[in-house]
Parts: sequence; structure tokens; C-alpha cells
Amino acid sequence: MNEVIQLLKAHRSIRKFTTRDISKECLSEIIEAAQWASSSTFVQAYSIIGIRESETKKRLAALCGEQPYIESCAVFLVFCADLHRLEHACRMHQTDMVGEYTESFIMATVDAALAAQNAMIAAESLGLGGVYIGGIRNHPEKVSEMLMLPNYVYPVFGMALGYPDQDPEQKPRLPMAVVYKEEKYEDSEDIDKIIAYDKIISDYYTRRTKGKRSDTWTEQMAEKMQNETRPHMKEFLQKRNFLLK
Amino acid sequence: MNEVIQLLKAHRSIRKFTTRDISKECLSEIIEAAQWASSSTFVQAYSIIGIRESETKKRLAALCGEQPYIESCAVFLVFCADLHRLEHACRMHQTDMVGEYTESFIMATVDAALAAQNAMIAAESLGLGGVYIGGIRNHPEKVSEMLMLPNYVYPVFGMALGYPDQDPEQKPRLPMAVVYKEEKYEDSEDIDKIIAYDKIISDYYTRRTKGKRSDTWTEQMAEKMQNETRPHMKEFLQKRNFLLK
Repeated sequence: MNEVIQLLKAHRSIRKFTTRDISKECLSEIIEAAQWASSSTFVQAYSIIGIRESETKKRLAALCGEQPYIESCAVFLVFCADLHRLEHACRMHQTDMVGEYTESFIMATVDAALAAQNAMIAAESLGLGGVYIGGIRNHPEKVSEMLMLPNYVYPVFGMALGYPDQDPEQKPRLPMAVVYKEEKYEDSEDIDKIIAYDKIISDYYTRRTKGKRSDTWTEQMAEKMQNETRPHMKEFLQKRNFLLK
Repeated sequence: MNEVIQLLKAHRSIRKFTTRDISKECLSEIIEAAQWASSSTFVQAYSIIGIRESETKKRLAALCGEQPYIESCAVFLVFCADLHRLEHACRMHQTDMVGEYTESFIMATVDAALAAQNAMIAAESLGLGGVYIGGIRNHPEKVSEMLMLPNYVYPVFGMALGYPDQDPEQKPRLPMAVVYKEEKYEDSEDIDKIIAYDKIISDYYTRRTKGKRSDTWTEQMAEKMQNETRPHMKEFLQKRNFLLK
């Protein structure tokens, strides 16, 4: 196993940070690494907003659902899907942009995610830790106003980065055979494997919480998926010109 | 610059492969690395289908828009957003799944992309090269039938992997200041920077094609974005239960 794969396999989300700052040079390394990720037909349809000001982090922490690590991290990155820049390009060449299709939404969302994962890996290679923050979609309209996001831009997720002040255990992933299929989708044996995995996750929580918690993966998922989550997203996105068609 | 960042910054899409196969062990390393990427609230809402059979690759190459490297690569991975597995979890606990919201679509699409980027990096660290294939969305319905994708699963993109038989130049990225913003979205100086970038890209193509091609980035983007692309995606996704709300 080489050093890169070792790093990838050692990933844990870090939610507790020391007070140490991230230098400008270090952050530049991370952003540059992010930019080298692939991009759909070279559109580079994402932007990253880096937040260091504590007042802004505080307000964002509240909007994301009171996640204190957004406030305590050194830098909070907001990854945005961004077609706004492409509008400039169209204007420069006197064409009208057609960006309201679902396809463009997927393209920009994927571009943001690929760049973000490069950023996470680069950060970890530099001794930093971080956690993705889907909570940025709790109040996307307020976040967009705060960060002055123009039309055709939306915050996909945040990423809190800093020097780790914790050393959490890794959370076991689904068995490979459940996630990876050969030649075609075949899941007739998945349920048995998921039941075995439930036991692993239950043991993991029992160990980690000294018995306070012992829920299984399927219990968590059933609990989560029975409720509507962020039902405002479609309307919000359509207001920003996404997903209209 | 450490080894990991060096690898990230050396990325190029590889579209020409030797006939050398990817061993089972090597592919397992890649998939395992993919699984260690972050996942939104631990849903792990993606699946990967690995295609080695040449007949299947050939048919997929045709469906993705006659991209010969899909046929010539050693393994073609199809990354799917997958909520189907969560339905199992709900059924096991007698709850009904609410998965038709845009939020769930974003969650699963991002999960697939984060895992894929880990796979790409792991592959590159092992001496492989690859290219993302958005063309899998050209005929998502046919691809889904072929790969027997159930309801609540859709192919986000493909990834052709193999041992490189080419050594292409890197394509310069947008200036960092265009992509990365401090504290808030501010793009008043972007146009000047994009015009300077246009020159870089034009020079890049001139050099690479010995003068046959010299288009700028904004020309490419204006050309691309003035047309509707894959207008079938919304209807297709809604048939698979995504984006209904």
C-alpha cells in the first residue's frame, strides 16, 4: 500500500480543532490541488469561498444547525456550484446561456464535489483535518445572501478545516460487495451483508460511547429517510435558475 | 510540496491505454480507497459497477457518444447515485422512505462524486490513468437497463481506467483568484483575469495541435452553453424517483 492510498484509507472527519491557524501558503496549496481535479468538459463550474472572519463563521455555524466546529475551525470553505462565470463567457461572445437544465446542475454539483475531495485530501496530507458540512443547505437562501452569491450559484456544502485536536476512530464502511458490483447491479445477497454490517456499526457505537448508543446502520438510515429533509431545496434552486427544466 | 499534493497537481485525463490489465487486487485497493471518502450523514448513497467484459464496454462506448477509450480501457467504472439500498433499510424497520426530494438527489450525487475522486487518486497513485465520462448521461435509460439499475439509482458518470499509453500535457486551470474568493463572492475583477486566461488556453491548444486549433476558454464555454445539453435528464431522473419534489 503506497503513501497516497494509506492517507485515503486513514480518513476520519475531524470536528475538534486546535487554535492553530492555517497559513496563507498552506491554504493556497489546498486550493490549487482542488483546481487540478477533473471538470466536466473543462467548465470548471464551481467556486470556493474561504471564511476566516470569526463573526461570519459564527453566523454560518448558527445557520448550519449549531455546529460549533464551524466556529472553531481555522478556515471554513463553502463549495459552490457555479454557472455564473459561464454567463460572462456567453456575454463576451454574444450568445445566450442555456443553463437551467438538470444536466447543468449535475455538471456543476459534481465539479464542486470533485474539487472538494481533492481539497480534503490535500489538507489531510498537510496534517490538517476536516469535515464536510451538508448543513449549509439548511438555509441556503440566507447563506447565499450572506456570501453574496449571484444567480446561477448555490452552496453545495461547506468544509471546516483546521489542525486536529481529536483522534477519532474510523467508522467502518459498508462491505465492499454491497457497494461494488461486477458487470451489472445485483443485490440479491446485499441484505444479509447489510445485517452483518449492522452488527459492526452497533459494536462501533457501543465501544465509542461506552454503551450509551448502540444503533445499527439500517436503524439510522430508516430513521433518517422516513422524514423529508430540506424540502425547500427545489424551490430555492429554481429561484437561482437551476433545475427549471 | 509533499508526495500526495504532487500527485494531485499532476492530474491529466488519460484517454489512451496499453493492453495491460488491472489486477483484482489493484482494483480492490481503488474501490476500498473510494469507500473511505466522506459520506453525507453516513448514508453511503452510491454504488460502483465495474465493467471488464469487452462486449459490454463496446456497447457502453457507443451509448456514451463513440468514445473509443471506454472500449480500450482495462476497467470501466460506472458511478451511480444510489438510494435503493436505503429503501431496504426502511423496509427492515417498517418505515416508508421519503427519497424523492431534491435534497436526497444532491446527497447521493455528491456521495458518488467524492468516492469517485478518491478512486481516481488511488488509481493514479498506482500508476494508472483515467478519465471521467459524463457521456454516460447521453442515454441514461439504456445504460440503466443494460446494467439493471433499480429504481432510485442513476448513473452519474463513468470512469475509464487503465495503464496510460500517452503522456498528455496538463490543461491550465482558471486563475486561482477566479475560483477562490475570500469572505464573500466578489467577481468584479474576474473578467480581466478570464481574458488573460483565454490567451493561455489559446496558446495551449495552438501548441498541442500544432496550430490546428486555437480557441479560447470563453469561446468553448459560449459554444457549449448556448445549446441545451441532455434535456432528457429531468424526465429520466423523475422516472427513477429522483427530483420529484
